[in-house]
Amino acid sequence: MFMERKSNSWFGYMGRILRLDLTNHKYFIEPLKRELVEDFIGGRGFGIKILFDELSSGVDPLSPENKLVFTIGPLAGTKVQSASRWIAQFKSPLTNAYCRSVGGGFFGAELKFAGYDAIIVEGRSEKPVYVWVNDDKVEFRDASLVWGMTTLATKEFLLEETDGRARMVMIGPAGERLVRISAIVTDDMRTASRGGGGAVMGSKNLKAIVVRGSKRPEIYDENAFDEAVREQIEIYRKNPAFEHFRNLGTNSIVYLFYTMGNFPTYNFKQLPLEGVERFTPEILASYVVKHDGCYGCMMRCWKKFKLTKGPYAGIVWDFPEYETHWSYGGVLGNCNIESITYANMLSDLYGLDTISTGVAIAFAVELYEKGIISKSETDGLELRWGDPEVLVELVKRIALRIGIGALLGEGVKRAAEAIGRGAEKYAMHVKGLELPAYDPRSVKAHGLNYATSPIGASHCIGWNKFEILGVPRKVDPLSIEGKGEITKYVQDEIAATETAVFCAFPISNDMVTLDLYSKLLYSATGIEKFKNPKYLWLVGERIFNLERAFIVRDGFNVSQDTVPERILKEPVPREPSKGQIFELDTLLKDYYRVRGWNEKGIPKREKLEELGLSNVAKALGIS
Amino acid sequence: MFMERKSNSWFGYMGRILRLDLTNHKYFIEPLKRELVEDFIGGRGFGIKILFDELSSGVDPLSPENKLVFTIGPLAGTKVQSASRWIAQFKSPLTNAYCRSVGGGFFGAELKFAGYDAIIVEGRSEKPVYVWVNDDKVEFRDASLVWGMTTLATKEFLLEETDGRARMVMIGPAGERLVRISAIVTDDMRTASRGGGGAVMGSKNLKAIVVRGSKRPEIYDENAFDEAVREQIEIYRKNPAFEHFRNLGTNSIVYLFYTMGNFPTYNFKQLPLEGVERFTPEILASYVVKHDGCYGCMMRCWKKFKLTKGPYAGIVWDFPEYETHWSYGGVLGNCNIESITYANMLSDLYGLDTISTGVAIAFAVELYEKGIISKSETDGLELRWGDPEVLVELVKRIALRIGIGALLGEGVKRAAEAIGRGAEKYAMHVKGLELPAYDPRSVKAHGLNYATSPIGASHCIGWNKFEILGVPRKVDPLSIEGKGEITKYVQDEIAATETAVFCAFPISNDMVTLDLYSKLLYSATGIEKFKNPKYLWLVGERIFNLERAFIVRDGFNVSQDTVPERILKEPVPREPSKGQIFELDTLLKDYYRVRGWNEKGIPKREKLEELGLSNVAKALGIS
Repeated sequence: MFMERKSNSWFGYMGRILRLDLTNHKYFIEPLKRELVEDFIGGRGFGIKILFDELSSGVDPLSPENKLVFTIGPLAGTKVQSASRWIAQFKSPLTNAYCRSVGGGFFGAELKFAGYDAIIVEGRSEKPVYVWVNDDKVEFRDASLVWGMTTLATKEFLLEETDGRARMVMIGPAGERLVRISAIVTDDMRTASRGGGGAVMGSKNLKAIVVRGSKRPEIYDENAFDEAVREQIEIYRKNPAFEHFRNLGTNSIVYLFYTMGNFPTYNFKQLPLEGVERFTPEILASYVVKHDGCYGCMMRCWKKFKLTKGPYAGIVWDFPEYETHWSYGGVLGNCNIESITYANMLSDLYGLDTISTGVAIAFAVELYEKGIISKSETDGLELRWGDPEVLVELVKRIALRIGIGALLGEGVKRAAEAIGRGAEKYAMHVKGLELPAYDPRSVKAHGLNYATSPIGASHCIGWNKFEILGVPRKVDPLSIEGKGEITKYVQDEIAATETAVFCAFPISNDMVTLDLYSKLLYSATGIEKFKNPKYLWLVGERIFNLERAFIVRDGFNVSQDTVPERILKEPVPREPSKGQIFELDTLLKDYYRVRGWNEKGIPKREKLEELGLSNVAKALGIS
Repeated sequence: MFMERKSNSWFGYMGRILRLDLTNHKYFIEPLKRELVEDFIGGRGFGIKILFDELSSGVDPLSPENKLVFTIGPLAGTKVQSASRWIAQFKSPLTNAYCRSVGGGFFGAELKFAGYDAIIVEGRSEKPVYVWVNDDKVEFRDASLVWGMTTLATKEFLLEETDGRARMVMIGPAGERLVRISAIVTDDMRTASRGGGGAVMGSKNLKAIVVRGSKRPEIYDENAFDEAVREQIEIYRKNPAFEHFRNLGTNSIVYLFYTMGNFPTYNFKQLPLEGVERFTPEILASYVVKHDGCYGCMMRCWKKFKLTKGPYAGIVWDFPEYETHWSYGGVLGNCNIESITYANMLSDLYGLDTISTGVAIAFAVELYEKGIISKSETDGLELRWGDPEVLVELVKRIALRIGIGALLGEGVKRAAEAIGRGAEKYAMHVKGLELPAYDPRSVKAHGLNYATSPIGASHCIGWNKFEILGVPRKVDPLSIEGKGEITKYVQDEIAATETAVFCAFPISNDMVTLDLYSKLLYSATGIEKFKNPKYLWLVGERIFNLERAFIVRDGFNVSQDTVPERILKEPVPREPSKGQIFELDTLLKDYYRVRGWNEKGIPKREKLEELGLSNVAKALGIS
């Protein structure tokens, strides 16, 4: 027996995928297939499987041929903690590779309540539309009124046009204008930022998907499930990280991580950051006026900041996370928290990836500093390190494609190519995706993940807890021994937990392990295979390899598995990583070996077969 | 018999005044007195009577001794159209005179539902507080969390702390910082802007009054009342102005009024406005994405603007009214609608009077043009006519008291005094209140109202429909014959209708007359006196004279009944008012005569006695 059914849904699943054909304004409610569930569990697994099967190589990411899949997992909308997030998967207009970008808030749970395990968006509407999903009723609606609006205004208008308690994913002006570093944003200002999902929605003339649902997922074994959830809650309560997240969210680590050699400064020049004492937890805590959190999560890591000083006084907005304190702060040499918060607000309103945006600005500032670009190319702006006004001004220009912003919004890789003159040297990206707030020279396995991740330089797709937090065991972040193994470990584990879709935070502290996930998953779904944590590890590796196969099919190989020249050649000038460079070749060789990939970075046939991906081996012509 | 009572309320009235003692955090619910109702009806009548009786002369407007009265009228919260507005009355920190400032939205009706006909605010809280009025329950609550926040953020936080359906009046950062041109703002972004009520609230450490009510006013004669309301609705439907208000609000008159010689340009230099064609109704209409309106009003004159071009693209906000198109547009030589809308948004968020703010900016620009101030006094800003960035930047600086903004936020009168060097010549104000969007040289009776109004240069306290719209009969706006009479007419009529509190718009077109008001008022309250429209005219005149008496007591007289030098001496250079100046002396003499005031502008004893204000004559020592 596969699993019990009540009504049309399965335990833990709603049993349905919603396919939106934007070209013809038609929709299809398709049954969830047994094999898909057994082989890929949910969330990220569903997304890559659908994309791999339905996209062919060479698809232009901004063409109607690209597809955008929104997925949730079998625990979404249940009482499991931190497991109601959602993922957007698509071919990225920034990297031309596969992308998976995760968002939070309440959209994931609401999608579940509406009765869907995933949404596949395909084609392109002739005119701007939004889709209103009210349980089984699906409507393509004219979006000309909200087209052009910020996310906040869009939310207000669409809630009025649909249901005041609906949830949504949408784009702001940046996505509409096909800015390649634009984000997808929820009604509660959570974002799936990375890789330009906003531009993909924009290219399809899709302003928003608004969802309201009244169903609830059924649980296979209520008692065992409740027991597992209780266990999860107990683990949370006991873990010191839990209180850190509750009190300050990722603000608690900003200063600490700087001292660890992360939080790279001045476009990764890594000079000591002037004014860094502004980023201590005590000071950041003084800005917090409200705590909030995603559906079904007791961590409540969202913090609202109140600004009382300077030209942005009066503003109250969702706090900048660790990454944004960095991308609008450290990497620009800017320690003005008011400007960081304000620029973060603009990014939420316009729909921008704050990481890529900040790194693009840092790139421009360094080019200006080096004399590679001049005032005639910066709309007359003087681009200086640490200037809050440069930050705010360029965020606006990037979002709205004004002047130099149009170029920077293409991402640093394309911008460097357009500029020439050696600009590429200062373009901090992997595969086109801008680097986040860790320095590969200071955390080698974490850097190895940047080099090898299918989506480019993403911190969260392979966050190395061994190196960064010493979890599950301490590993010297500067050594290069055994780094292939722990890189694979975290990449596979995260891929596995993102079938749920679990938040990365409890994973980073082992507050959620695959052992616990297995208990939760089996009791929720009753699927025998899920009873074994080892199977979950296998699914994680399967997903990661299928993602690799997706980009290999599009021509990616070892030559794109790299990091910027500065990381390879310039020794870090500050402690504790002073003198370090990133030993790419050695690390990569070790990693490929551990992964079972050949020297070109192509998964070997045996590995694919071991993972149940023989058909993929065939598709790639691997014999 | 005075009037029937059911429960504790009277027909049309709730029978209670709420007195808030901020010094001691105590409140008192006082019975509404029979004489107050009979003599002053409600709204503006209540406010001036309370202030006249309870304030002594010489009170510092920003001291705890000043009082702030919020009033509504006997028709608030009923089905009467356009009669649920509210008034803030206080001694003004801008003019040092009496001020009445009117606001809209839903606050007025909600206050009625909570069971109060007025709120008197007195004293000063040691720490920031807000007051939560939930029917009969009144709480003084800590406002330290919301202190410093914009109005929008304050609303969000206070609704969460009280009741999601509550209504409120509040201040933004400008009021907190005691900016003398700061406004009081409702949850729906309606403002009582003029005269610095925001600063009065700020000086009392009062961030907001939040109200929720469940009562409903009782009606004396339901049948007659319904019949009168039906009549009102019929009149609305038949009047062409009604459709104008519904379609475009006051945007419909912007261009028209410019061509009539109003909408004064370049700080009243009145040169032809470059780019004025941007203000045609067709273009303004293209910005409208939503219509909305106050409680109980079918005009729905609120328009939301969507910005799609330039650096403010994406913003959706309540439209700038005629006055703001002018104060952030015409008077600055700025025809960039995007910047006007954005600056209007900032003004709502910070809580600023857009009229005074725009005129203060125009003043600064002209001083800069004339070389009276230089870059060293403008924070390095180049102040140019028609520069959208100057507008936006100075609005921020005024609201937050940054640099030159601190000076301009004092109002043009004080700013000119501080600057000296002949700056006063370019300070367009009467009694300290900045001039609105009409030129006294082009509409003489309307200008005469500016000169004589107790609150300074207010357009709405004596909007001259004879001159501007030819209602109730056409009068040549440039002639000076008989202008005392029609000025008195509109001033008294508006004072009378603001006992309701009716909106000025239906008054301006005779859609609401005192005949109609009388029918509505008598059928709602059953008070015999109100049956006679002539009595309402008398009450209007009584109110206006009591307001005059209030400022006379504080030392005002003929010498402050004037207009700026430019208006008196510089002939208008553009048609149709080309060559005109403002003939103050002749006009004033005629007006005083009609008013029954002596040559010093003091109401004569006979006049005061005729109006039932003998005690006032005594108080002023008029024998």
